[in-house]
Amino acid sequence: MTHASHDLTLADIARHLNVAFEGDGKQPVRGLATLKEAQSDQVAFLANRAYLKDLVATRAAAVLLHPEHAESCPVPRLEIDNPYLGYAQLSQLFDPLPARDVPGIHPSAVVAASASLGEGVSIQANAVVEEGVVLGEHVVVGAGSVIGADSVVGDHSRLHANVTVCHGVVIGQRVILQSGCVIGGDGFGFAHDGSRWHKIAQLGGVVLGDDVEVGSCSNIDRGALGDTVIGNDVKIDSQVQIAHNVTVGDHSALAGCSGIAGSTHVGQHCMLGGGAGLAGHITICDGVQITGMSLVTNSIHKPGVYSSGTGAMSNAQWRKNAVRFKQLDDIANRLSRLEKNHRGQM
Amino acid sequence: MTHASHDLTLADIARHLNVAFEGDGKQPVRGLATLKEAQSDQVAFLANRAYLKDLVATRAAAVLLHPEHAESCPVPRLEIDNPYLGYAQLSQLFDPLPARDVPGIHPSAVVAASASLGEGVSIQANAVVEEGVVLGEHVVVGAGSVIGADSVVGDHSRLHANVTVCHGVVIGQRVILQSGCVIGGDGFGFAHDGSRWHKIAQLGGVVLGDDVEVGSCSNIDRGALGDTVIGNDVKIDSQVQIAHNVTVGDHSALAGCSGIAGSTHVGQHCMLGGGAGLAGHITICDGVQITGMSLVTNSIHKPGVYSSGTGAMSNAQWRKNAVRFKQLDDIANRLSRLEKNHRGQM
Amino acid sequence: MTHASHDLTLADIARHLNVAFEGDGKQPVRGLATLKEAQSDQVAFLANRAYLKDLVATRAAAVLLHPEHAESCPVPRLEIDNPYLGYAQLSQLFDPLPARDVPGIHPSAVVAASASLGEGVSIQANAVVEEGVVLGEHVVVGAGSVIGADSVVGDHSRLHANVTVCHGVVIGQRVILQSGCVIGGDGFGFAHDGSRWHKIAQLGGVVLGDDVEVGSCSNIDRGALGDTVIGNDVKIDSQVQIAHNVTVGDHSALAGCSGIAGSTHVGQHCMLGGGAGLAGHITICDGVQITGMSLVTNSIHKPGVYSSGTGAMSNAQWRKNAVRFKQLDDIANRLSRLEKNHRGQM
Repeated sequence: MTHASHDLTLADIARHLNVAFEGDGKQPVRGLATLKEAQSDQVAFLANRAYLKDLVATRAAAVLLHPEHAESCPVPRLEIDNPYLGYAQLSQLFDPLPARDVPGIHPSAVVAASASLGEGVSIQANAVVEEGVVLGEHVVVGAGSVIGADSVVGDHSRLHANVTVCHGVVIGQRVILQSGCVIGGDGFGFAHDGSRWHKIAQLGGVVLGDDVEVGSCSNIDRGALGDTVIGNDVKIDSQVQIAHNVTVGDHSALAGCSGIAGSTHVGQHCMLGGGAGLAGHITICDGVQITGMSLVTNSIHKPGVYSSGTGAMSNAQWRKNAVRFKQLDDIANRLSRLEKNHRGQM
Repeated sequence: MTHASHDLTLADIARHLNVAFEGDGKQPVRGLATLKEAQSDQVAFLANRAYLKDLVATRAAAVLLHPEHAESCPVPRLEIDNPYLGYAQLSQLFDPLPARDVPGIHPSAVVAASASLGEGVSIQANAVVEEGVVLGEHVVVGAGSVIGADSVVGDHSRLHANVTVCHGVVIGQRVILQSGCVIGGDGFGFAHDGSRWHKIAQLGGVVLGDDVEVGSCSNIDRGALGDTVIGNDVKIDSQVQIAHNVTVGDHSALAGCSGIAGSTHVGQHCMLGGGAGLAGHITICDGVQITGMSLVTNSIHKPGVYSSGTGAMSNAQWRKNAVRFKQLDDIANRLSRLEKNHRGQM
Repeated sequence: MTHASHDLTLADIARHLNVAFEGDGKQPVRGLATLKEAQSDQVAFLANRAYLKDLVATRAAAVLLHPEHAESCPVPRLEIDNPYLGYAQLSQLFDPLPARDVPGIHPSAVVAASASLGEGVSIQANAVVEEGVVLGEHVVVGAGSVIGADSVVGDHSRLHANVTVCHGVVIGQRVILQSGCVIGGDGFGFAHDGSRWHKIAQLGGVVLGDDVEVGSCSNIDRGALGDTVIGNDVKIDSQVQIAHNVTVGDHSALAGCSGIAGSTHVGQHCMLGGGAGLAGHITICDGVQITGMSLVTNSIHKPGVYSSGTGAMSNAQWRKNAVRFKQLDDIANRLSRLEKNHRGQM
């Protein structure tokens, strides 16, 4: 699955990482692999001590590793302070997608006459670009994707296939939108008259900063009045919901199936675990981590790791304990009474 | 982001709400905003006492408010019993979408010859309308949306871009389907023969009442034999799953990431919080609220608010308590023994 | 909603199930229904003793049932060891979709010249098949679906409308992909340099075995280096997330809204309840069931049923108990002290 999009050598790799290299620079490199699975034309990396055992037996063409592990490496080495970062940088060289992007508009795509297209834009089969849209340079609009009226997409951003960007959305540079995600659907706003709901037109938009990524089947809803705002370098996994008027600070990361309810503010460098949920109208300060499937209903003002829930156990054990959870207040009161009586006796 | 689709004055606004108004009726109104952010050509509203502090300093063209707050308002006022409802009604005036709906069939759309199209229908670029579909008057089918064979869509309903309505689905009037939602995919039905699964063809359909809204990336699965039925005025947020043969009563609202398993019946005027889950084959009576991320595995026969789970705390504190949860039955038994012994001593 | 795609008789039904039948074999059968709702031209089934009360009053043309219930059946019977399985087999006869699949390429579809198409392939309106794709015999590509470059789809597989299969994905035979699902979006992989994220190109693919089904709006992300691998006969419901480099063993079933984080391995014949979550980098052995909305953060090495969480209760009761949960470690410590003191007294 991992093929080089063009011919590369170990010397190319070393140059790309800007690291010194000893060995046969002409050795072709056709891909990346784990230490264990790497063939003699693949580069591997050691980013976790747990894999030191695989290092000694690796057959890779070369290994990215921290200098402290240099001696244990049986093959040519690429020494680097942060091998995982080096791997990330190398991985880009082997991505087959960019080579396939043909600039221009596929004849089956529908592009409004009033849309403004930057240089090198690629609009693929059956995509739709509506009135007044502005696409920056080298924007890629995948097959079947739709960009609604008056939206703006920054340079070098990529919409994969079947992405929907609704009207009036502003997207930064180098943003990646995975297939099936929806940016700018209506927020969930209704007024109740005592017997039924009345829709509140969602008049705000969505603003995505630079270097944002949004995963498959995730959605970011448009604001009711102001905008929903996602900062720079925010990474959003698949199946994530971000409701109207949420703000997420720069460099935060939201794992799969997490959700943020309306008007909640998340700080910078925050991380939500998979399936975590934030209630609406709360504020999470910078540097907060929420562990998987935790629910947060109050603001958090102190950086750190927060959790809720109970760990998994056998269902038989769980049934007994879950019943007791419903008696917990009673248990605590009985304990207090017993302590009081006991003190009385002493 | 919030622009009037056409020129409106304060007099127009007052007339639309059917309220008395004193002041310069000719003042142009170009949008809505919060009390704090409103400019002199925007109308604001006070729907929550928490914002009384913003009322006294507002620069809005006028403010929708309850008569009891009239004296505190420094600008012209629109007095109304339910200002939030008034805001909802006004918001519709500023929605830019309806003005953009061009009636007719975009040349790139594919519409089966056997489809029946009501007056004023708008079928946008690259949409697909299959055999035997019936679209009511002024139905909008957004770009890239697909309506499967023999489905029916009522008057004034709107499918945003990239919506999928499968075959044999019946959709009421004034229904709004946000981008990426899927109505009528197969329910999750399989028979096990002891070693493998056999698919049960999902032969039922989906029926959506009038005034239903379904959020981005949500899905409502078709029934196995009978239909999955969503009542009138039911509001469904983004990332919601509704399984086969579920019924949801009129006026209920389901927040983001909630899910309802197969054959469960939800009453009228119910509310599911974000991420809440209902097990299959249970019944929830009218007027039940389930708080966020709660799991309900048994039927509920009494209106009220129901919850499960534990509140969030620091991970260090949580780890200690979560371990104790696994000992809870033991703790309860030890407490009972101690109480018994204690009574023996007294 | 449940109509026969062609004319069938009771004799046809009996022959299809390979069971003996006494009665009027020429009786037309126009569909399936529950015991309670079946009309005289519909076949019903009894798969659960709870419905024995409906059996005695049924008006069905015939009933599928276990021989032990034969005596209670007032209408012609089709005796079979596993009536639910029989119902699954019959249901296929009444699915209206296959009859609608017109072989060939709709003129609005875009199919790359380098794609290879098996016999009887049906590519519907506005679908896109990119360079190098290989479609087996009788593959159906629904309206608006996109298949990315170099992907392979096995014989008799069906993509419903608006499905996205990204590049380099391998799909087995008889696979069913419901609308809105995404196979092969990028996994959530980023390296942090101390201040910001760097994307790790996701160079692996996705491999789906034979007889896999994926529900509406679900996603299976591509691997970082190796592939994400879904075994044969794995059934995946709607709104499910499967992260990069996950493996799921044959015959497992994942209910709606469940999620599996990266590099986790799930065995064969496992079942995830709705909304259940598995943390990353863990291993679940064969034959494990996780109940609804449970979170599993450690590997499981023993077959059985596992759970986490707390049952739902009234919010008033819950508030008291949830507060006590935060004191649970303290409660346990106080109980131990009391027990110690008590023993000292005795």
